[in-house]
Amino acid sequence: MEDKAQIQDAIKTQGEVVRKLKSEKATKEQIDEEVAKLLELKARLGGDDGKHQFVLKTAKGTRDYNPKQMAIREKVFNTITSCFKRHGAETIDTPVFELKETLTGKYGEDSKLIYDLKDQGGELLSLRYDLTVPFARYLAMNKITNIKRYHIAKVYRRDNPAMTRGRYREFYQCDFDIAGQYDAMIPDAECLKIVHEILSELDLGDFCIKVNDRRILDGMFAVCGVPDDKFRSICSTVDKLDKMAWEDVKKEMVNEKGLSEEVADQIGEYVSMKGGMDLAERLLQDQKMSQSKDACAGLSDIKLLFSYLQLFQVTDKVVFDLSLARGLDYYTGIIYEALLTQAGVAAVSKEAQSGAPSEESVSVGSVAGGGRYDGLVGMFDPKGRKVPCVGVSIGIERIFSIMEQKAEASAVKIRTTEVQVMVASAQKNLLEERLKLITELWNAGIKAEVMYKKNPKLLSQLQHCEESGIPLVAILGEQELKDGVIKLRIVATREELDISRADLIGEIKKRTSEA
Amino acid sequence: MEDKAQIQDAIKTQGEVVRKLKSEKATKEQIDEEVAKLLELKARLGGDDGKHQFVLKTAKGTRDYNPKQMAIREKVFNTITSCFKRHGAETIDTPVFELKETLTGKYGEDSKLIYDLKDQGGELLSLRYDLTVPFARYLAMNKITNIKRYHIAKVYRRDNPAMTRGRYREFYQCDFDIAGQYDAMIPDAECLKIVHEILSELDLGDFCIKVNDRRILDGMFAVCGVPDDKFRSICSTVDKLDKMAWEDVKKEMVNEKGLSEEVADQIGEYVSMKGGMDLAERLLQDQKMSQSKDACAGLSDIKLLFSYLQLFQVTDKVVFDLSLARGLDYYTGIIYEALLTQAGVAAVSKEAQSGAPSEESVSVGSVAGGGRYDGLVGMFDPKGRKVPCVGVSIGIERIFSIMEQKAEASAVKIRTTEVQVMVASAQKNLLEERLKLITELWNAGIKAEVMYKKNPKLLSQLQHCEESGIPLVAILGEQELKDGVIKLRIVATREELDISRADLIGEIKKRTSEA
Repeated sequence: MEDKAQIQDAIKTQGEVVRKLKSEKATKEQIDEEVAKLLELKARLGGDDGKHQFVLKTAKGTRDYNPKQMAIREKVFNTITSCFKRHGAETIDTPVFELKETLTGKYGEDSKLIYDLKDQGGELLSLRYDLTVPFARYLAMNKITNIKRYHIAKVYRRDNPAMTRGRYREFYQCDFDIAGQYDAMIPDAECLKIVHEILSELDLGDFCIKVNDRRILDGMFAVCGVPDDKFRSICSTVDKLDKMAWEDVKKEMVNEKGLSEEVADQIGEYVSMKGGMDLAERLLQDQKMSQSKDACAGLSDIKLLFSYLQLFQVTDKVVFDLSLARGLDYYTGIIYEALLTQAGVAAVSKEAQSGAPSEESVSVGSVAGGGRYDGLVGMFDPKGRKVPCVGVSIGIERIFSIMEQKAEASAVKIRTTEVQVMVASAQKNLLEERLKLITELWNAGIKAEVMYKKNPKLLSQLQHCEESGIPLVAILGEQELKDGVIKLRIVATREELDISRADLIGEIKKRTSEA
Repeated sequence: MEDKAQIQDAIKTQGEVVRKLKSEKATKEQIDEEVAKLLELKARLGGDDGKHQFVLKTAKGTRDYNPKQMAIREKVFNTITSCFKRHGAETIDTPVFELKETLTGKYGEDSKLIYDLKDQGGELLSLRYDLTVPFARYLAMNKITNIKRYHIAKVYRRDNPAMTRGRYREFYQCDFDIAGQYDAMIPDAECLKIVHEILSELDLGDFCIKVNDRRILDGMFAVCGVPDDKFRSICSTVDKLDKMAWEDVKKEMVNEKGLSEEVADQIGEYVSMKGGMDLAERLLQDQKMSQSKDACAGLSDIKLLFSYLQLFQVTDKVVFDLSLARGLDYYTGIIYEALLTQAGVAAVSKEAQSGAPSEESVSVGSVAGGGRYDGLVGMFDPKGRKVPCVGVSIGIERIFSIMEQKAEASAVKIRTTEVQVMVASAQKNLLEERLKLITELWNAGIKAEVMYKKNPKLLSQLQHCEESGIPLVAILGEQELKDGVIKLRIVATREELDISRADLIGEIKKRTSEA
């Protein structure tokens, strides 16, 4: 790294060189040459005069949300939160950082993506990587054995994300989890019902929820002849099937992971299977698969799960898919992942606008995932006491991206405030009257704005209303003050009515209650 | 630091020593001695069997929020957000960390409290220290010259906080700021109106908003004879007047900061002054004070501010207090701070319960602060273009503490879910029927719960409703199914009604709409 002070000194010296040449009336070429050197030095500082050397940006992989994006975010969060509440969940919050050792050994290979805090004396800390591990730590710490909770918060991963595809290093997760010793597959089915409800309500186009079970994967590996110590590693190779062709996945299994061709082919046969309850039944009869106790336990649970999903009326979107693996270490049973399968409205219209093919991964991709993790809380409990858990995490950055594109493509303007009325004046010297009136409105709970100018022009006050979608203007004028009335202007129709001061609040409430 | 793997090896070896002695029927003393060594090794690991060596805690200065605390937090946030929206604010969000250099040089002495992230390759990052500097960075980066925005988010300070007093290393700030070139003191007055509204609505007992101006402080220092280069340093000594007696503050000025007794006494005279618009008028006539252009500009603005505060009907709580200094470097004009002045209800009842005096700092202390910072955005702009800003930050951790104490002292039970109805069964083998019914309710938007058991006891289902405040129970039984009805139980009165299945949703909505 360059020392900024040194560069600043060099800039000073070089500046003097240029000034001297100019005062000496040197040739243009001579001056230009030295000026070029000066500019180069300044460029190395990053600013244009050496005083403001800030790089004006957010950290890599992060972004600000502007008011329009926040309006969309609020809408999405409201839909998700309503669903979680409808299913009776409480909510908790945990700190953004945890003791480093709390996160150690929970994420397998992904641990390298954890953000650590600098050791400034005291504890070693890391930013949370997900909301599941802090949840398990919370349960163990407070000896909670059953709870249904949601948690919406940001998590942090030092990934190299493609940000145009809605992936970031700082991103929100919306988690819903059920902890407790319950009868099999009832809470698991509710998690899938929740994913179904949320994705339907957000209206993101068609979607599909893939389901599998870690025990079926393990059993399958065992009966295919994968050595025990390679289960995890082969599992993460299978996990790549959503991005890679089977041929490439097979190559990795054989060439990198050392499986024989025959074993890989047997796996290949299984992981191509997709279906519903019928597939689970068929596999329970499968000569090889039925030899594994693990696989049978998983398959019976898949059957039970589907029977509950039928009662919940969501089987239309759920597929039992043996290629679903999921990366995280802590899953022990059912796993699932929801994918948007349809090019969204926005992506299509974007394509139509630009002529270029739409970016597939914005509209197609995983937007939710989860599963059962019966061992995680026990890893934190001093006595190893287990608390069975199942949960789902909605990854909403991609959903935001789609909603943003949709909003852009749509003609409907997004409002970023909820202001009902603007208090305006038609003449000069009415600031005091405006402030008096807006105080009345605020005190009555009306959302109101006033321009922070002593004598704003009426036109600019009205323009502000048009631009920001404020539906009403309460206009004060000399004559109105004398008559004890306010001129109420309806922005959409440009209609104006004289309302007595006493009736104004009622009139505003009446006219904005439908909105 | 000890290597854990080494200790674990030692434990293994020592365990074998103990087993060998036992199998050899060694003497009790011999065995006890070796067992003691084993236990000592295990203690060094921190766990009780060497496998679970986690320290089960949150990072120092941070805390989890449990569902009850979250319910209180949601209520407080709703009050604050409603107020911000009533005043027409948009909202934005920024990342939890910023480039380290974005925060450099903004906080004076407090910079040492900034959390840095570990250098893991790439940019140097720090956790945000407040929401004001990221806001200024956002404005400069997006070339925004006027906006009224709020931002509610967590900030981070490596302080050594007294956590019982509601101070943490991770805590929320609720910021409202107005950026833009406007006529003097109109936005400033609105910020104070907002503080007044929020503190009144939260019903935290009496409060007081102190107001001063950086220019008055600077002018006062100048006319008292403080050397220019000591303004900042003397300012931070004055800032201690809320915690220290004048005599001690004076000592620091004379002994540590090197002021003469006379100069300190002159300052002492001014900083003891409190009043309203009248005080500002008096000081404008003050022989000494009126010599400072800065002070006069500040005093005129205080007068103007009070005239607007009168129109806003909030002068009852606002005091012009020359001892208010505030620490942060970036303020340029008006500054203010709100304090709760009354022992809260909760603190009083806690005192009554325990017999000990209530902890004063929970109920009395600063809960909001802010001011004008016209130079901050310019520090980020490559051309130094200024955007005048004024804002206020509600520090709500202390407010949470008071609300929590109030809730504990109160007889009213806080609900942590919004469940309207529990779907229960009176007999065995009705899981399918329960799941079918709850699907109908969920699909109709009713907030409903079901026990995750095949055959839960009716009593335990009813008990769950009593405990978590669920008002209604929809009970399924063999007979009801035959009759096409549901037994609806009103938990509060234990009344039970047979409702036809078709009318159930309407009945539930009707009975829970008042809640």
